[in-house]
Amino acid sequence: MTDPAPTAAVLIIGNEILSGRTQDLNLNHIATKLTQRGIRLAEARVVPDIEDEIVAAVRALSARYTYVFTTGGIGPTHDDITVDAIAKAFGRPVIVHPEAERRLIAHYGADKVTPGRLRMARTPEGAELVDNLVSGAPGIRIENVFILAGVPAIMRAMIDHIVPTLPGGPVVLSRSVACLIGESVLAEPLGAIQAAHPDVDIGSYPWFRSGKFGVSLVARGIDPAVLDTVVGEISAMIRSLGGDPVEEDS
Amino acid sequence: MTDPAPTAAVLIIGNEILSGRTQDLNLNHIATKLTQRGIRLAEARVVPDIEDEIVAAVRALSARYTYVFTTGGIGPTHDDITVDAIAKAFGRPVIVHPEAERRLIAHYGADKVTPGRLRMARTPEGAELVDNLVSGAPGIRIENVFILAGVPAIMRAMIDHIVPTLPGGPVVLSRSVACLIGESVLAEPLGAIQAAHPDVDIGSYPWFRSGKFGVSLVARGIDPAVLDTVVGEISAMIRSLGGDPVEEDS
Repeated sequence: MTDPAPTAAVLIIGNEILSGRTQDLNLNHIATKLTQRGIRLAEARVVPDIEDEIVAAVRALSARYTYVFTTGGIGPTHDDITVDAIAKAFGRPVIVHPEAERRLIAHYGADKVTPGRLRMARTPEGAELVDNLVSGAPGIRIENVFILAGVPAIMRAMIDHIVPTLPGGPVVLSRSVACLIGESVLAEPLGAIQAAHPDVDIGSYPWFRSGKFGVSLVARGIDPAVLDTVVGEISAMIRSLGGDPVEEDS
Repeated sequence: MTDPAPTAAVLIIGNEILSGRTQDLNLNHIATKLTQRGIRLAEARVVPDIEDEIVAAVRALSARYTYVFTTGGIGPTHDDITVDAIAKAFGRPVIVHPEAERRLIAHYGADKVTPGRLRMARTPEGAELVDNLVSGAPGIRIENVFILAGVPAIMRAMIDHIVPTLPGGPVVLSRSVACLIGESVLAEPLGAIQAAHPDVDIGSYPWFRSGKFGVSLVARGIDPAVLDTVVGEISAMIRSLGGDPVEEDS
């Protein structure tokens, strides 16, 4: 289908994700919020704390998608190199952002603003700030890139603040029907339903829950009437195979 | 540091991750297993179920890293396009792999091998099979790419089987020291410790647990004696700032 919606990519910056030390939880939250807003998350990448890797990924993603959201690497320590890397990606110098400095002083108190804390007022030249209601250091917008914290509570506050301000396209709605029939048995009739409805994406997701193997058939599209039709056809197909279709949260 | 270890990338294939429907759990498991084996996970990407996207990502990642592990899209339904896309990435036809077919027949019984099930015997020409002890459909190795299931239980069985067969490099060891001092206060002395030990990567990860803000300082490197030294310096630095260093699982 021709899709007029804005697109987005997520860039997760952090050795701790790639080493396995930390389970990323940010991508799923951002994906959910963007989907609800009618912005299509089209790609995500995880890169290490290496400047050249961040620069290359930011350039590739910002050229291709409407928005890029980065997470991680904006704290005060030596391994926080995201701001410098993204400034480099856009060929801009890093400056101390006067408003970010003012906010950090207001947050910590003038006598407690250490050089480490003021490091968090550094932004690429020409950046706008993203409010951070949880801690003092703001997020940053430069060009089409939003530079967010990696700590989930702070990242969530930032993204929940940003997303409603962005123009969204048609929201992709989702309906899910579960059954206990094997994917292999469903594959052929399900493919026929998909072929008949090119404006709907039908996904088949097998699972194992409470000792039972089953599958969730998820239909996604922007027209609720078409989704109704597709869910009806999927349910009828399941019944025709002797199964019991159960609509579930999607 | 010059690092002789093999490198790897993970390619997660699935609309359900990008829509927010599903929280990916596979990356963290693969990352942990590779780290334990001395293979450096250098990048991860998530792409949708779109052939051109999969082809482009496989080509980019397989050219750059020693190994690529893909997850998702190898079932029997219409949305399972991983095998075709990876075959295309390497300019190979898709064939019905005789040994995969034999295994599927053995698993399901000759009278129950539907066309849908036999679809899971399709591989790029020249592929090797990866054992799947959980369900009938094998994983696939082609060139330096391992094509794994997306269902976590099956993916884990496959990766746990594969990784010990791959040559690993020096294992990166990890030590973590937690304290309740703010990152901004630690930043400068921590940066000095990092500068003095270029063969160790020191990461600083702030957290909020049980009502307290703290930070974990994680040192990673291949030489346990150097890590001992670094952990000692970090602990002394924390004490010099009035804090109480607590070594934790890393």
